[in-house]
Amino acid sequence: MDRHDIALIGFGGVNRALAQIILDRGDELAADLGFALRVVAITDLRLGSLMQADGIDLADVFAMRDGETFAGRPGGTAAPQNDYVIRNSTADIVVEATFTNPIDGEPGISHVRAALESGKSVTTTNKGPVALAGLELNRLAAANGLTFQYEGSVVSGTPILRFASETLQGLRIDAVEGILNGTSNYVLGKMESGMTLDVAVAEAQSLGYAEADPTADIEGSDVQLKVVILANELLGADITTADVTRRGISEVSAADIIDAAAQGKRYKLIGSAFRNAAGTVTAKVEPVALPLTHPLASVTGPTNAVSFDTDLLGTVTVSGPGAGRIETAYALLSDIIAIDAHQRARVEAGR
Amino acid sequence: MDRHDIALIGFGGVNRALAQIILDRGDELAADLGFALRVVAITDLRLGSLMQADGIDLADVFAMRDGETFAGRPGGTAAPQNDYVIRNSTADIVVEATFTNPIDGEPGISHVRAALESGKSVTTTNKGPVALAGLELNRLAAANGLTFQYEGSVVSGTPILRFASETLQGLRIDAVEGILNGTSNYVLGKMESGMTLDVAVAEAQSLGYAEADPTADIEGSDVQLKVVILANELLGADITTADVTRRGISEVSAADIIDAAAQGKRYKLIGSAFRNAAGTVTAKVEPVALPLTHPLASVTGPTNAVSFDTDLLGTVTVSGPGAGRIETAYALLSDIIAIDAHQRARVEAGR
Repeated sequence: MDRHDIALIGFGGVNRALAQIILDRGDELAADLGFALRVVAITDLRLGSLMQADGIDLADVFAMRDGETFAGRPGGTAAPQNDYVIRNSTADIVVEATFTNPIDGEPGISHVRAALESGKSVTTTNKGPVALAGLELNRLAAANGLTFQYEGSVVSGTPILRFASETLQGLRIDAVEGILNGTSNYVLGKMESGMTLDVAVAEAQSLGYAEADPTADIEGSDVQLKVVILANELLGADITTADVTRRGISEVSAADIIDAAAQGKRYKLIGSAFRNAAGTVTAKVEPVALPLTHPLASVTGPTNAVSFDTDLLGTVTVSGPGAGRIETAYALLSDIIAIDAHQRARVEAGR
Repeated sequence: MDRHDIALIGFGGVNRALAQIILDRGDELAADLGFALRVVAITDLRLGSLMQADGIDLADVFAMRDGETFAGRPGGTAAPQNDYVIRNSTADIVVEATFTNPIDGEPGISHVRAALESGKSVTTTNKGPVALAGLELNRLAAANGLTFQYEGSVVSGTPILRFASETLQGLRIDAVEGILNGTSNYVLGKMESGMTLDVAVAEAQSLGYAEADPTADIEGSDVQLKVVILANELLGADITTADVTRRGISEVSAADIIDAAAQGKRYKLIGSAFRNAAGTVTAKVEPVALPLTHPLASVTGPTNAVSFDTDLLGTVTVSGPGAGRIETAYALLSDIIAIDAHQRARVEAGR
């Protein structure tokens, strides 16, 4: 039985959910996938750092008291020594799940770079490194014979990137458009039934869909990062957030929504990118009044969806959860499965 | 550059579309996929048989006069010697695209068996062999170190089977349900807007969606075959059509549809299979009044869709074309890509 040793950078909801999956059903997964998973390092802003090459007792970590740190445990410190742990742990895969920084991508970019420089493949759910330095980090991974995977950076665990790159092989993707933010989609739905933007946002916050500061969701900058990832990954573009025109749902009024409904249409915040006649890629985020027959018009609430326009197959759409701790942890697991497959292919090719 | 030599069994719309794709964009595909495609055999009820180990001139075949056969060409006969060609052609991949026989799966089953017995991998769009003998043919393929692929047997080129088996790796699929027949879906949509079943069927026929005999579409037996494939392939069942309860859309009246609409619901012909408490699989085809918020409720016209209920990710849905010559030819191409990948993996593993 093969095994991957993993380092968890950040121990918030998503990496905790991944650890819980490994603890609860590691044996079942190993039988299914042909490899075992062992956590050998954890770092976290509040917990500090823990490196144990023989495998960390996850049940023990889950039993930690509030305010307790890793200090005092073998291989443990109270300080979150992210860079040191990434470079020196015995892990072969680093799982980066720290917060998204939409401005400069840090510390995510440095984490990914440190991992790839020290011989470790990386999976991340962090949009920052992928949107702001994806091409550079992919080149670094390739140069070092490693794999950089980030399925969870776009639509949580719903496998959009892998669907496009693997399942749609042989097709040319000409355009991609999607509902890429569950909070704004939920809020638009509520506005359709007569709520004001502010009340709908407050409701989304109380349900845990929206952040305390909902600006990134409502004004479209979260979607903007995701459109950069989709355009660069699926359309071979090399764009940055500055290249993505952005308008948020605050520009849609209750009157707009009523007018649209009267015409059989429904507003959705659409992130899109398409290859234009000049061969470059046009990308934008904007509220669009879609006809009800459009494949994205009926995607409601926190569900996300992405439609791909292809040459031979026309339009194909994938929809599924766009958030959730366990769902996003599955994105990490699916990335680890892909990293394993790539490593095996490399070993076979090198024989 | 690697190359696959292929034999086209049946030269109707779908295999013609595949040949056209190879003729028009073979070079582009070869650059993209890393292998070339060459047609070395064609058999067809009306055209006869043609075997040319150095590759058939497809432009010449497309230029054939109405009523002309392959007789007189080198390697050509007026008779469609399917079994002889499958066994003796120099192809390494057989593309089976003859008609679906829902009763005994013939001649499709014999074609697939002959190919696998003579060392050739197979792709088919023919539901018959997959639904009625899928497990046997998969075992035969595995025993002979070959690959049997049939993406196009369920939802045309929309890659349902590969999405489930590859993109959703690591998840347990507990249930699958889908809109698997575009004709009945189109007819139900027309009945919603007040048409009678008969008029709607006639309109679907005039648009080319429905067959001259629409019984298999309207009474659900087409979907029944597809449910067998989904249940056996994705839920590990071993069922036959007799195990799939079947009710068609002829059981839905205009009054039912109006009543459903008054309750915010919409009728869809749903094929479904789920793992029940006893661990066996329950499968059925029936018209279901879905709430409009259901992911399948808004799938309209000739579009098909399949939802997968999974343990970690909840419900994920893929929608796309459920018919069309080019779209279905893409299913064959995607199968050939999968066969190539399996063959490479086998070669690497055998080194």
